[in-house]
Amino acid sequence: MVDDSPLLLVLELLGIFVFAISGGLVAVRKHLDIFGVVVLAGTTGLGGGFLRDVLIGATPPAALADWRYLLVPVAAGLTTFVFHPALGRMERLVNIFDAAGLGLFCVTGALKALEHGLGPVPAALMGMVTGIGGGIARDLLAGRVPVIFSSELYATPALAGASWAVFAHEQGWNLWLVAWPGVLVCFGWRVLAIVRNWRAPIASGPASV
Amino acid sequence: MVDDSPLLLVLELLGIFVFAISGGLVAVRKHLDIFGVVVLAGTTGLGGGFLRDVLIGATPPAALADWRYLLVPVAAGLTTFVFHPALGRMERLVNIFDAAGLGLFCVTGALKALEHGLGPVPAALMGMVTGIGGGIARDLLAGRVPVIFSSELYATPALAGASWAVFAHEQGWNLWLVAWPGVLVCFGWRVLAIVRNWRAPIASGPASV
Amino acid sequence: MVDDSPLLLVLELLGIFVFAISGGLVAVRKHLDIFGVVVLAGTTGLGGGFLRDVLIGATPPAALADWRYLLVPVAAGLTTFVFHPALGRMERLVNIFDAAGLGLFCVTGALKALEHGLGPVPAALMGMVTGIGGGIARDLLAGRVPVIFSSELYATPALAGASWAVFAHEQGWNLWLVAWPGVLVCFGWRVLAIVRNWRAPIASGPASV
Repeated sequence: MVDDSPLLLVLELLGIFVFAISGGLVAVRKHLDIFGVVVLAGTTGLGGGFLRDVLIGATPPAALADWRYLLVPVAAGLTTFVFHPALGRMERLVNIFDAAGLGLFCVTGALKALEHGLGPVPAALMGMVTGIGGGIARDLLAGRVPVIFSSELYATPALAGASWAVFAHEQGWNLWLVAWPGVLVCFGWRVLAIVRNWRAPIASGPASV
Repeated sequence: MVDDSPLLLVLELLGIFVFAISGGLVAVRKHLDIFGVVVLAGTTGLGGGFLRDVLIGATPPAALADWRYLLVPVAAGLTTFVFHPALGRMERLVNIFDAAGLGLFCVTGALKALEHGLGPVPAALMGMVTGIGGGIARDLLAGRVPVIFSSELYATPALAGASWAVFAHEQGWNLWLVAWPGVLVCFGWRVLAIVRNWRAPIASGPASV
Repeated sequence: MVDDSPLLLVLELLGIFVFAISGGLVAVRKHLDIFGVVVLAGTTGLGGGFLRDVLIGATPPAALADWRYLLVPVAAGLTTFVFHPALGRMERLVNIFDAAGLGLFCVTGALKALEHGLGPVPAALMGMVTGIGGGIARDLLAGRVPVIFSSELYATPALAGASWAVFAHEQGWNLWLVAWPGVLVCFGWRVLAIVRNWRAPIASGPASV
């Protein structure tokens, strides 16, 4: 966490909530049962942070030490299970909130990695992993190739936001200047990618077999 | 492990053995080679405990420090490779033993998490993860959506058994009262689910696309 | 790492590079975008070492503390993205280099596990995991059952090389005698398997359903 302000806690929990809803929607579409919906919601909401914490050796992950981090994705999963038709119709709105969660997680993830002594490049990478890890785990469990590998511009904004946070932190700037521009760069870029349907390039030429 | 009694060691190894057989059967049906059968057997037998140990920071996992925990799933894999037609025919019996393994693992997993300082809610969750993690890893490696997400009532009994163990442990009750009712609740519920073909609910209404 | 000689560093980086190219080629064939190609390249090149380090508790993984280990798979991914038609045509050559990487990783992985206090059997297993883990992660992310489970003799040579390293290390022999015969056994066996199209046995008889 960037600091212990109630605002950031609320934002983080909101980010987990919308990540978890995206996981729950995938689960409902795959006809999983209520347990599968809650597990996919939880994995999507918390998976990125868990992966970062396991890689940097910060175990047990913070979310396992604070029941609010466990309650929020369960609530999101149950909400999706019941209200999935309505949530599915407002998926664009969910995606905007998801972009906000991505912006927040890439910055907090990078800062946590720096705190644990990682260098600037790995820390930026861990920030990106925090943002995208949950979605990758969601897609693996749902039996599809992660969408962020082929059809969405999602990881690059996260890497950009994380890189800002690492750069500003190395300059010794204060926390607000470290965190918020990073969050905004990631959020703004990702929202533009949603609105304008930007995609990353595909390799040209026929793939050899 | 709940304690160091030979009975519990035998039960744990038996649980790993039947978990591993279920992994080996999936591998044979997917036409994997002998190495794939042994790896799927090992992953199913030990994966839940490995996942728990990595998440709670108890690395290297206990199974890596005791050759018996490695020998048992290899033996189960080779047994399945050779005798898969017979084992496949008695799959219902395998499932009953699997339910016993589930009961045991959810309790021992929860107690190990408590020992490592996790709170009650995360400890119960880790107990469930110990029980279900191997089957999830098996299905991921075999290229299918985990069956416990959509067609079997499997995780809820594990969570119930783990929750009992955590609750009784918090009351300071003695080990037998902590462990065995938890094992029995999970085992009994799971066996009833097998016999009566119980399933968890699926979301109602058409899934939006 | 076996020791800090520049030769071994170059060999390790070369091994990561060719592993990463095999990941990039799979990604291009699955029509992933440039980010997906780089992620699959990185996962294939570094995944085995990451998995070993997480399991033995050596976190953060060494590759996160040395930017060269991160740069090499990114370069391999971008190279594959641009030159995939040519690389795809020389895949047999890539496979020979891949066998060299496998030989190197199974030995260095086993020795690192011994350094961290694991016993001989788990250490040999961790050596094999170091060699095969990246390819398994690559296939999971690309949505296919790992090829080493069903159509290639790949893991057994890695286990043989790792076992040699552990055995020779336990005898107290010097480093060259520990490392190079292990590398050569794995490399030679794997190359023969490629050239002669050896495969591991499949279970006989119809699989029960």
